Amino acid sequence: MGKLTGTQVQELHRDHVLQSWGKAGQMAIPVAKAEGIYLYDYEGNKYADMSSLLVCTNLGHDNKEIVAALKEQADWMSFMAPSYATEAKSVLAKKLVDLAGPSFRRVFFTNSGAESNENAIKMARMVTGRTKIFSCYRSYHGATLGASNASGDARRFAAELGGANGFVKFMNPHMYQDGYTRGVDDEVCTNNYLKALEQQIRYEGPNQIAAILMESIVGANGVILPPEGYMEGVRALCDKYGILLIMDEVMAGFYRTGTAFGWQHFDLVPDMITFAKGVTNAYVPLGGVIVNEQISSYFEENVLQCGLTYSGHTLACAVGNACVDYYEAHNIGAHVVEMEAILKDFMETMVEKHACVGEARCIGLFSAFEMVKDKENRVSLVDYNEPNTAMPAIMNQLKEKGFIAFNRDNYVSICPPLTITKEELAEYLPIVDEVFTWVDETLI
Amino acid sequence: MGKLTGTQVQELHRDHVLQSWGKAGQMAIPVAKAEGIYLYDYEGNKYADMSSLLVCTNLGHDNKEIVAALKEQADWMSFMAPSYATEAKSVLAKKLVDLAGPSFRRVFFTNSGAESNENAIKMARMVTGRTKIFSCYRSYHGATLGASNASGDARRFAAELGGANGFVKFMNPHMYQDGYTRGVDDEVCTNNYLKALEQQIRYEGPNQIAAILMESIVGANGVILPPEGYMEGVRALCDKYGILLIMDEVMAGFYRTGTAFGWQHFDLVPDMITFAKGVTNAYVPLGGVIVNEQISSYFEENVLQCGLTYSGHTLACAVGNACVDYYEAHNIGAHVVEMEAILKDFMETMVEKHACVGEARCIGLFSAFEMVKDKENRVSLVDYNEPNTAMPAIMNQLKEKGFIAFNRDNYVSICPPLTITKEELAEYLPIVDEVFTWVDETLI
Repeated sequence: MGKLTGTQVQELHRDHVLQSWGKAGQMAIPVAKAEGIYLYDYEGNKYADMSSLLVCTNLGHDNKEIVAALKEQADWMSFMAPSYATEAKSVLAKKLVDLAGPSFRRVFFTNSGAESNENAIKMARMVTGRTKIFSCYRSYHGATLGASNASGDARRFAAELGGANGFVKFMNPHMYQDGYTRGVDDEVCTNNYLKALEQQIRYEGPNQIAAILMESIVGANGVILPPEGYMEGVRALCDKYGILLIMDEVMAGFYRTGTAFGWQHFDLVPDMITFAKGVTNAYVPLGGVIVNEQISSYFEENVLQCGLTYSGHTLACAVGNACVDYYEAHNIGAHVVEMEAILKDFMETMVEKHACVGEARCIGLFSAFEMVKDKENRVSLVDYNEPNTAMPAIMNQLKEKGFIAFNRDNYVSICPPLTITKEELAEYLPIVDEVFTWVDETLI
Repeated sequence: MGKLTGTQVQELHRDHVLQSWGKAGQMAIPVAKAEGIYLYDYEGNKYADMSSLLVCTNLGHDNKEIVAALKEQADWMSFMAPSYATEAKSVLAKKLVDLAGPSFRRVFFTNSGAESNENAIKMARMVTGRTKIFSCYRSYHGATLGASNASGDARRFAAELGGANGFVKFMNPHMYQDGYTRGVDDEVCTNNYLKALEQQIRYEGPNQIAAILMESIVGANGVILPPEGYMEGVRALCDKYGILLIMDEVMAGFYRTGTAFGWQHFDLVPDMITFAKGVTNAYVPLGGVIVNEQISSYFEENVLQCGLTYSGHTLACAVGNACVDYYEAHNIGAHVVEMEAILKDFMETMVEKHACVGEARCIGLFSAFEMVKDKENRVSLVDYNEPNTAMPAIMNQLKEKGFIAFNRDNYVSICPPLTITKEELAEYLPIVDEVFTWVDETLI
């Protein structure tokens, strides 16, 4: 379809693109085509996209129904400014509020997950008149100054040059790395962590704290499943101290975990929901914040000091409508639960079989293997935030066999498009088994 | 084309959308169609969009060539992640570097102007190892935490809850408000301001200052034209103290002022250029930072600690390519210069004729009237950042006559799509004359 060869595309990229989270001047795979769960390079090599790129293309590549809706809106009107009402924006706002449930009332639209968290933080500060934002060390919320300072992982460091005030980190549970046994120690783990959190809240001053910002299911930091009762306990602390609970659903939202939002697995309701990625299947950038009645009412009486040129972008909202409709019409939630059973079974087998796999965590089609070099003592294959060759080698082995996974730290994540079939899972999962055998034999 | 009535669109918007920079729960005009310089509501009322919405739809509404390119890319591939090379991204990176000129080498892509400034600030801090960012009081750079703290106008205040460190504001010249006469006092005005800036640089510590971030032509704060020599003087101070110069071209870029970028009116070259808006005519969100050879090389050796899911968004880049091609193929720069002459003439007449118009500033199709209540003493029609009814009344008068302008503070800005014809200008400009007569008679 294009005018250039793959080599030309690669060379221009190497010479003129600054690469996210990398060094410039490297060769990147030039993608000629993407369809369903597959990517193809210019030489016709086929890769199964088992990470939905950055856990965003939930409905796969070149999804014809969504592309059709996109083109239809482009023919009508691509963009109208935030101060005007458009059908695409009005309808999507209503759909998202309905999807979130009866506590929710209004949506503030942004372009991205980072901007969504930025605006949720701003709103929480305005509504409460408090400034501190609590967030987890094991977390990621985006790379703009506010979102990055709220993030826990090491990508935060660059945003701390200069720095921002009022961001307080607390440690959130990671049962495996903390030495607990899931299904046995949940209560004690939950109690320990909640006690520490409450203590920290008191030492930081409850009436200084505007919000606790958390991913419902921690994503990029390793699909960390909280112990039973933990999330409900955080909600209870928020209620006790008048702190707002912002749930980051940028990765976990839109049926990634089987439910519309990840928090729906717990017995709680947040005050704000931030979203992006799956809402448009990444076809057009879109994010936002869904707020409850209380916050919504506050901004009927007070000017919302948030804004951006593309808030409620018309084309993006039309694609959002097509995606929400698609999730519902194709019953994607139920399909995810079916595929989850297959993926979970496979992952458990890998834990039993391989010395390099310490634990497998899976909820919906959101999953991670915890790679270890000493299973008995739960010693990670690589040290946190230290350069290493082992994890890149694993990812390369997978890629060479046509399997693209997602990775940070010592995790290998499998998060395919939610439309993946059981036949596709059956065809591709054995590659993981092969590569883990190679890891057992070579890397540990 | 849609399924709802205008009233339904309005009511859903009122009930479920949080409005940028406003109170929720208000009625907004529902837009049924947009074409060329015109918007139409559901009752068929026609409005001339003399602000290019938020100074972003430079090539007008429903521009068929651009829509065709958008749809073509959607049929090919809407999105591929940042780590892969795509033709759309590679080609646009090269085009933008060429447009910026021989000093420039690479592009980091974002979704928006705010994100572009966020990333330029991060890069400047990484490259220099310094933390302070200087920016102007009379400025706007976006609403995320970093971009907002770098902004000068009052929209910054909400982002200062909590706050961010290392942002230093300096006052930039506004000849009219400062009591200078353009064409007469430029040298003295420039000298006064540069002397004050250098003093502030010394008091803040030159080796603490990573960058000076400026709009080439201050946009949302009133199309403020700098005195002769001022911008070159700022560049000289940057050179003297090893400070990077980041030029914000979010509004002024892409031929808004007649040249590709606003800084091309001055005898200087910045180190980084931030852009958004006009690059895609707003049809798909896209922004970015164009960096020079020095910064580019730094990130060949060092990991760029910046990233976002949609960096180099495929669909957005394809639209960017179509827009850059359109600007060049249709010789938009030359057309802007032609229309500028007509607009300038008209604006000068308004200054002569109306007591309420203190000054008119115009560069390309980027212009503002300075509204005053006492012309002799240059007293603004409204006080800075105080609630008032006069400016909304003026904007409403214009809108009721089918003329949509842009406004902040005491400015009325006219920034139509760059494709506007002289016939359209001739038809609509008299409305401004009428409304100013009403202002003379009623408001001052």
